[in-house]
Amino acid sequence: MNAEIIAVGSEMLTPYRQDTNSLYLTGKLNELGVAVAFKTIVGDKRKHLTGAVRTALGRVDIVVLSGGLGPTEDDLTREATAEALGVRLRRDPDIIAHLYTRAAARRMTIPRNNEKQADVIEGATMLPNPLGSAPGQWLDTVVGKHRKLAMLLPGPPHELKGMFEAECLPRLRDIVPKRQIVTRVLKAAMIGESLADARIAPIYTEYKDVETTILAHLGDIELRLSCSKPIAELAQTRVDDLAGKIEEELEDFIYSSQGESLEQIVLYFLEMRGATLAVAESCTGGLVAERLTSVSGSSRSFVGGAVVYSNRLKTELAGVDAQLIATHGAVSREVAIALAEGIRERCGATMGLGVTGIAGPAGGTEEKPVGLVYIAVSDADGTDVVEKRFSGDRAAVRFYASQQGLDMVRRRLM
Amino acid sequence: MNAEIIAVGSEMLTPYRQDTNSLYLTGKLNELGVAVAFKTIVGDKRKHLTGAVRTALGRVDIVVLSGGLGPTEDDLTREATAEALGVRLRRDPDIIAHLYTRAAARRMTIPRNNEKQADVIEGATMLPNPLGSAPGQWLDTVVGKHRKLAMLLPGPPHELKGMFEAECLPRLRDIVPKRQIVTRVLKAAMIGESLADARIAPIYTEYKDVETTILAHLGDIELRLSCSKPIAELAQTRVDDLAGKIEEELEDFIYSSQGESLEQIVLYFLEMRGATLAVAESCTGGLVAERLTSVSGSSRSFVGGAVVYSNRLKTELAGVDAQLIATHGAVSREVAIALAEGIRERCGATMGLGVTGIAGPAGGTEEKPVGLVYIAVSDADGTDVVEKRFSGDRAAVRFYASQQGLDMVRRRLM
Repeated sequence: MNAEIIAVGSEMLTPYRQDTNSLYLTGKLNELGVAVAFKTIVGDKRKHLTGAVRTALGRVDIVVLSGGLGPTEDDLTREATAEALGVRLRRDPDIIAHLYTRAAARRMTIPRNNEKQADVIEGATMLPNPLGSAPGQWLDTVVGKHRKLAMLLPGPPHELKGMFEAECLPRLRDIVPKRQIVTRVLKAAMIGESLADARIAPIYTEYKDVETTILAHLGDIELRLSCSKPIAELAQTRVDDLAGKIEEELEDFIYSSQGESLEQIVLYFLEMRGATLAVAESCTGGLVAERLTSVSGSSRSFVGGAVVYSNRLKTELAGVDAQLIATHGAVSREVAIALAEGIRERCGATMGLGVTGIAGPAGGTEEKPVGLVYIAVSDADGTDVVEKRFSGDRAAVRFYASQQGLDMVRRRLM
Repeated sequence: MNAEIIAVGSEMLTPYRQDTNSLYLTGKLNELGVAVAFKTIVGDKRKHLTGAVRTALGRVDIVVLSGGLGPTEDDLTREATAEALGVRLRRDPDIIAHLYTRAAARRMTIPRNNEKQADVIEGATMLPNPLGSAPGQWLDTVVGKHRKLAMLLPGPPHELKGMFEAECLPRLRDIVPKRQIVTRVLKAAMIGESLADARIAPIYTEYKDVETTILAHLGDIELRLSCSKPIAELAQTRVDDLAGKIEEELEDFIYSSQGESLEQIVLYFLEMRGATLAVAESCTGGLVAERLTSVSGSSRSFVGGAVVYSNRLKTELAGVDAQLIATHGAVSREVAIALAEGIRERCGATMGLGVTGIAGPAGGTEEKPVGLVYIAVSDADGTDVVEKRFSGDRAAVRFYASQQGLDMVRRRLM
């Protein structure tokens, strides 16, 4: 069985807003073994919407509509779906009573036009909406000899998710042929997408029953392995088998085998070793600290550090010798080392991380171009420093540098 | 005239990837005065794709396709479009020659299947692609007595943008009836969306010819005013007129009247006043510094500061009296003030900002719940501090706190 997701709302046809419900719905449908064949976004125009529903009923088995169930003139999903199916709407007195009771309980009056939310498509089952006023609708019908399912869901994401999980999933599980789907996520840092793919493609292409998706983002690669079988254990075995071979091939580039973020892994390793970390950041301007502290509980191993944008602060907060900066320049191997060692000592941490570079777009020279970054990690065993030339815009250079720094801390702890 | 955007590619029918080209294309089409009526996402299946193109040609004037122009078996946009139009493909020997020349210049060999990129739809004009190998196609044709435009563009965003701007925009400008569209963006900080809307809706609803869109995000509101007229000056006058009235109503909540970010405005004010800023962040963990340093040139007024996650670092890097922390707790009015004053002095900056709070989800108590944040701003005239209770998850509390801090600096500089 396959599906189409139709997002209804003119705001999603502007340059500023995107439909996001469909990502959630696609995930849930895929878990059932239902592929999404089309996604359509249509505005609040009755003719357009009716046409879109008719097209969808003609080309897929399951149509999931989101939005357009509210009380205003613009909310036309009920009318358009009924018209596409060639059936009538019936105003349900029980739902009207419920709408007024709900409003009274909140000491609100509701305008007459709200009654439109009680219009039920002929043959439909109403779906309760405990998180909002607009009820949903479920249709299990026949169009031209083919069984078709259609569901009308509210647009606000928390209402849609609540209703889909409570009302639609159990019904779909009874109808869709059973499959067990197992997914596992591996992550790798600081290896290019094409290089990683060249190394692992010969492996994963042998696993025709496991779907392998590679998502790449600035120094971070996510490998999603997914397998669907009638029995969960069979799927798990295939996924684990493939994951093991990929880990063997990519070795220590892989930092996570269960989908954790690099920040989480670094904090986990620090805690496991009873270690603490302090950072001194110049070109990343607080990004490393921000990433680490975005994880709840990070204060157990991350003590903090300094954002040393000016040379004065490199000396004042991280104890870098002013003469060293004068001799080698703020962006240098020597200053990166001094930042890592200085902040470690100043903060009394087990490990120190120092980052200095030129994020751009301004400030580059022939000798020290935009993208040049020095990153140093220091602990009781000594200090390592690397020189990197990252490409991309300011945000990309900064993210690469933060990723490289976190990855160096991880490798030091391994 | 109206348009449909069709994004081609099975990866956009997974839960992990979203089509983003359509936001760019919608913006450009809207600037021409062309409304987008539908967006469709379809996978690499010939039957589905042919059907989607046929549907689009039946319901809009302009069809913009992105993706599916590469050399592999999966790249079917040319075949499907030709089939939907009922015309043939012709393999163009000049393009084949160009493909081999391009590959030779890069000392690459190309497999035979690459010749597929030279297939031209009958009646189409080829569009050069200086940034990639797959050329695009432009069709100006008649379907059932109606003039229809269709363009086939490559999927990678930089190739699509380059081709759309160089090849499609000039052609569309010759065909689409002329309109001048003027857009202006106002931004407001730390005012709720519904409160802002309640205050300005009576104003903007009077301007029926100006489209007003409100986009809200954690303590930040964007008001987009857009007007389309035959003459640009007329549109500009209407937009400026409405912008002036909104600024009058929302007063100093408005921080930007030309779309700048809050970080940019704070840095602009600092530079204008010859002032410098240093920050000491506890619960925001570097987010304020990261936001400021994301702006190129920020080093002119932002010197840096400290991420003082542990109590020891509050004393060591920001000079907060350990006794003060012991007496009032790290999350307190007194410590926020001491952070702002201490970091200002330690860094020799004109202004200091201190943030301390409980971002959650753990660490809250009845007396000091998750979301409680103290924020202090200090300069030569003294120190202000506020107590806030932000709602939402860890990321939301942290963002609200950073926004409040930046807004307090802005107001102090005004």
